[in-house]
Amino acid sequence: MQTAEFHVSSNRRTQFISITSRINALVVEQGWQNGVITVFVPHTTAGVTINENADPDVATDMESFSDELVQVHHGFRHSEGNSDAHLKASFYGSSVQVILKNGKMWLGIWQGIYFCEFDGPRERNVYVAFSG
Amino acid sequence: MQTAEFHVSSNRRTQFISITSRINALVVEQGWQNGVITVFVPHTTAGVTINENADPDVATDMESFSDELVQVHHGFRHSEGNSDAHLKASFYGSSVQVILKNGKMWLGIWQGIYFCEFDGPRERNVYVAFSG
Amino acid sequence: MQTAEFHVSSNRRTQFISITSRINALVVEQGWQNGVITVFVPHTTAGVTINENADPDVATDMESFSDELVQVHHGFRHSEGNSDAHLKASFYGSSVQVILKNGKMWLGIWQGIYFCEFDGPRERNVYVAFSG
Repeated sequence: MQTAEFHVSSNRRTQFISITSRINALVVEQGWQNGVITVFVPHTTAGVTINENADPDVATDMESFSDELVQVHHGFRHSEGNSDAHLKASFYGSSVQVILKNGKMWLGIWQGIYFCEFDGPRERNVYVAFSG
Repeated sequence: MQTAEFHVSSNRRTQFISITSRINALVVEQGWQNGVITVFVPHTTAGVTINENADPDVATDMESFSDELVQVHHGFRHSEGNSDAHLKASFYGSSVQVILKNGKMWLGIWQGIYFCEFDGPRERNVYVAFSG
Repeated sequence: MQTAEFHVSSNRRTQFISITSRINALVVEQGWQNGVITVFVPHTTAGVTINENADPDVATDMESFSDELVQVHHGFRHSEGNSDAHLKASFYGSSVQVILKNGKMWLGIWQGIYFCEFDGPRERNVYVAFSG
């Protein structure tokens, strides 16, 4: 098992940020070949998901629907006022797994990996582990 | 790490299709014994989940609730008109992990693995990786 | 690959129960050092998620929002009357992955692991696999 990490900066409260090219670069840099990578977000108000990498309207639709589904002013108890962000983080999840074949991520042609910010703007981290 | 893939055909727009026996057959065929398998869906309008394998009404209820929660005609921006399918795909997720012990999936007695179609009917693929 | 399991008891229908210290203890006891652990819930009306470990109001907000989002009396078909619990289980998911570095879980400072009961009270199991 080998690990790496990198930083992501968000500039809105809810923001899906493509990290596909960052992870591709990491895979090449580390020389990882065949195995499974775990992309892990070490935050409780952000998540990670795999979705369409072509039309940016898909990410925009995901951002707006998430905010409608779990509204900020819902009468939550948590005093920091960001329970909606915690819930969204768990709905999308804290990690994704991608299979690596011959040094390339074995993704579908339209798939990209998105860091899902739900309580930005913030400086965030992403952890990656490779198991050969 | 070893990999395999297979095809799934859906015949409705939203359809949960059991792929448990397909994966069981794959595990036997490949001779995989002890490790973790990653079942990965390389599509952005389909997902994969683990749920009840006994009463088919559970899958039917999951299909209908998913369609009520994220409605097709919601005023999304994505011009292909299937943003609801992209959102459902991310809510269920693009992969599941199952532990293998002595050549058998270590599942609960009621658990099965479902391919979750949200923009069918289509021909789809499923990728499987085994890490020993 | 090595495996372990432990039991969890819930005492309400919907209940997020922290299992972080249980898994920490398991990692130490098993002597697992560097790798990825898969925490897997072998039930179809319970899940597992990673979220805030500090203010217990976050877990309470997640419990109550989940019950509002998928209501028990929704007109589901499944005759056991717990389709809402099956849906919640799939929204949160049946497993989480955590990276281990030098015998410690590589989590964010606020992250804890929660067993998500949606059809309690019950006696439940949690499976854990370590891949080095």
